[in-house]
Amino acid sequence: MEIKIYEKVMSANDAIASEIRKLLSANNIIALNVIGSPGSGKTTVLEAVIPMLLKKKPPVESAVIEGDLATAYDAERLGSLGITAVQVNTGSGCHLDANLIYKPLKELLLEKINIIFIENVGNLVCPSQFDLGENAKIAVLSVSEGDDKAAKYPLLFRVASCVVLNKIDLLPYSNFNKERFWGQVRKINPNITCFEISAANGEGVEEFINWICKYKMCNEK
Amino acid sequence: MEIKIYEKVMSANDAIASEIRKLLSANNIIALNVIGSPGSGKTTVLEAVIPMLLKKKPPVESAVIEGDLATAYDAERLGSLGITAVQVNTGSGCHLDANLIYKPLKELLLEKINIIFIENVGNLVCPSQFDLGENAKIAVLSVSEGDDKAAKYPLLFRVASCVVLNKIDLLPYSNFNKERFWGQVRKINPNITCFEISAANGEGVEEFINWICKYKMCNEK
Repeated sequence: MEIKIYEKVMSANDAIASEIRKLLSANNIIALNVIGSPGSGKTTVLEAVIPMLLKKKPPVESAVIEGDLATAYDAERLGSLGITAVQVNTGSGCHLDANLIYKPLKELLLEKINIIFIENVGNLVCPSQFDLGENAKIAVLSVSEGDDKAAKYPLLFRVASCVVLNKIDLLPYSNFNKERFWGQVRKINPNITCFEISAANGEGVEEFINWICKYKMCNEK
Repeated sequence: MEIKIYEKVMSANDAIASEIRKLLSANNIIALNVIGSPGSGKTTVLEAVIPMLLKKKPPVESAVIEGDLATAYDAERLGSLGITAVQVNTGSGCHLDANLIYKPLKELLLEKINIIFIENVGNLVCPSQFDLGENAKIAVLSVSEGDDKAAKYPLLFRVASCVVLNKIDLLPYSNFNKERFWGQVRKINPNITCFEISAANGEGVEEFINWICKYKMCNEK
């Protein structure tokens, strides 16, 4: 009985995700679902990436849907940089689902947007199981979380298109073994694209942005 | 309909949690449910705490139930220090529930144990919603996760008996504002007990251990 209900919930989610996909495609928008633990630096990555996308020629216009249990902190942080950001609060919910983002998405000025970043609730498990109508899932993991996390939490790394290893400026103060981490990631998903960045000091961000731009070109109509 | 099923799941969980509580009480064991994000340092905290508990007079004997989606890394880490640890793999499950730990718990030599630490799946949301028959929930948060996490993920901080702020050795390399963090924690839960530690270098661990010993004395038969 539990399984039937779960299937019903998932098929309701997938029907709305499919509507979102049509809406985004009709507006020639790429959606990227950004997933990682609390404090992995998802918002800081967006703060680094979005202004640089806007400086590209032609400029790449972004908007953000922010998921958190409570507060509008992240949308406010992005808003203070002039970035369009809508906050969705899940209450006790551990992930965003398609229904939660459909309405805020429709209220954005879609004709002016090239990329929508969906920053999911900080959680390395549940968000990877819900289709939000995105083009790709991006896994963000920080050096301070430890080099064993892909093996211990393989779900996200199976379904993500790329992994951003963030906070590489903390490598000198940690015992994070990059070879171990990337070896475990590639064992789970040999086709995944890998980046090492510090969103705080900008290191490696340019290469990640180039991937986003290339991904956008390859996936728009 | 979803709510009914959820209630059914929760009441099944709570019935087993109640059995666990009886079993622990009959053996005069305190159980502590350790909850925090992936990479917050839960296992490292246990590595620091358990050998020091054993040096107390009389010695405090511990065992650990380790929850992870996959691998036995954490149980192996503790086992290599001579600590009794049982690994529970949840597959795609984002938290431990009472049913998952009941059997491994019964297989431990309960008459020789004073404290059972249950290290939950790394997740700041879901584990706080499930009673495992524990005496107290302990929230572990690391400096590298950022000072806004209690406000953004209030669930755990509402139900935890104490908060361990870990990785304080990283304070010089982060913009973590301790006053902001503790202010938000105390706003959510004014009665919560607060510790600042570095499980890596031992700073502050003694005070946390004294709390555990006092908690044990106050809660055993």
